[in-house]
Amino acid sequence: MTKIVILGTGNIAQHLFDAFEEHSNLEVVQVLGRNDPALEYFNKSTETDTNFGELADADIYIAAVSDDSIYAVCEQLKITNKLVVHCSGSMEMTAMPSHNRRGVFYPVQTFSKGRHVDFKDVPICIEAENDRDLAALNGLATTLSCHVYTVTSKQRGHVHLAAVFVNNFTNYLYGVGAEICRKNGLPFDILHSLIAETAAKIQEVSPIKAQTGPARRADKGTIAKHLALLQQKNYFEIYSLLSRSIEETYGDKNG
Amino acid sequence: MTKIVILGTGNIAQHLFDAFEEHSNLEVVQVLGRNDPALEYFNKSTETDTNFGELADADIYIAAVSDDSIYAVCEQLKITNKLVVHCSGSMEMTAMPSHNRRGVFYPVQTFSKGRHVDFKDVPICIEAENDRDLAALNGLATTLSCHVYTVTSKQRGHVHLAAVFVNNFTNYLYGVGAEICRKNGLPFDILHSLIAETAAKIQEVSPIKAQTGPARRADKGTIAKHLALLQQKNYFEIYSLLSRSIEETYGDKNG
Repeated sequence: MTKIVILGTGNIAQHLFDAFEEHSNLEVVQVLGRNDPALEYFNKSTETDTNFGELADADIYIAAVSDDSIYAVCEQLKITNKLVVHCSGSMEMTAMPSHNRRGVFYPVQTFSKGRHVDFKDVPICIEAENDRDLAALNGLATTLSCHVYTVTSKQRGHVHLAAVFVNNFTNYLYGVGAEICRKNGLPFDILHSLIAETAAKIQEVSPIKAQTGPARRADKGTIAKHLALLQQKNYFEIYSLLSRSIEETYGDKNG
Repeated sequence: MTKIVILGTGNIAQHLFDAFEEHSNLEVVQVLGRNDPALEYFNKSTETDTNFGELADADIYIAAVSDDSIYAVCEQLKITNKLVVHCSGSMEMTAMPSHNRRGVFYPVQTFSKGRHVDFKDVPICIEAENDRDLAALNGLATTLSCHVYTVTSKQRGHVHLAAVFVNNFTNYLYGVGAEICRKNGLPFDILHSLIAETAAKIQEVSPIKAQTGPARRADKGTIAKHLALLQQKNYFEIYSLLSRSIEETYGDKNG
């Protein structure tokens, strides 16, 4: 039985809690958070507390808090030489104070309130200061997920950067599509099937091979037509830059 | 029984052919193409010909050819006053010669060789010069799909533009993510679950509400960290522009 304390009450804390609860070899013995109402999510099935000085004994302490709060939260923990991990993509492992054994447990996924996530498909990046702690984190991660990666802080930073491109920026492009539809009296639903297929395709074909569209074909006529339709300055610039970048990527192959 | 002639042998021609073949009230009586080997895909189950002068009689003639070829292909057809449609997102209906009744049958999807597409989920945009032809196209489209939209050429141009953002540009961002992974010794698989969830989420939550990430939070620290990691000029510019655009979109809400 692995005993776990979760520090924090936000989206990731809730999703991790739900995932841990599904496994009989894991026990969340306590959830700590400053936000009393937010603790209600947890307090039917585990101990909760707003006082970070009242720590339960556990094998792993998970700081599921925002990047900016990681240091402060970990510093106030009245424990020493315990395994404490954060869940951030972009923070170094050594961003935590050194009076505990440090580690990282980073699920590569976007978590939203009310949307169930099946953790067995969620890649988890782990890191620790010593092999025994790494083995413990590997045990925890493989209980949840079929995709566990031991990576350095530097590699993890690149995973997080790549995640911004494929998640945050992609979602923004979905928003541009939605806005273009709205302004022209069309429902955004008209793009749903295309969005789903575009995402599904790259599970089988590499994106470099899957690329299509006017810029891929160096189809100057269609590009000019599209630019003429884009009155919003940001959209015009995004279309220009991404088209130019696609043309440069495939330029040798076209020429 | 609706009799159909397909002009062209490429991806869209093949996918439309496969979709039509599934319905007993539709009959593809002929497929025409200049490319003899490409006709093999069709010639086990229908007539094929390389001579565009040898046209079979049909209710609807579908020009499933590239934008640049639409006019030339339609002009050489030795028929008059027949319903001839193209499948392009960006070409006006009137881009076809006027000796036949003109229409448009535009499936809003990306088609790849060897990937099955379930047409019942594919939105189809239709347009025609008169109500009777529009009804015929509506009959054909609703046989295939649950999502049929009657739109003007102008609206369709905007659908196509939006499709470039959510499909071509999104795929390019997947490629950037793949490249960042590759350069840092990480498999692209590490992003698959995130890509699938990002695409799935907007079927339920609007992209404007689903937006997360450093730019959404105006998290200058993480943005600066990410920009410092981006040595490739295009990637740096894309990250900067999209982050700035997201910050501007949400600026009022942050401030």
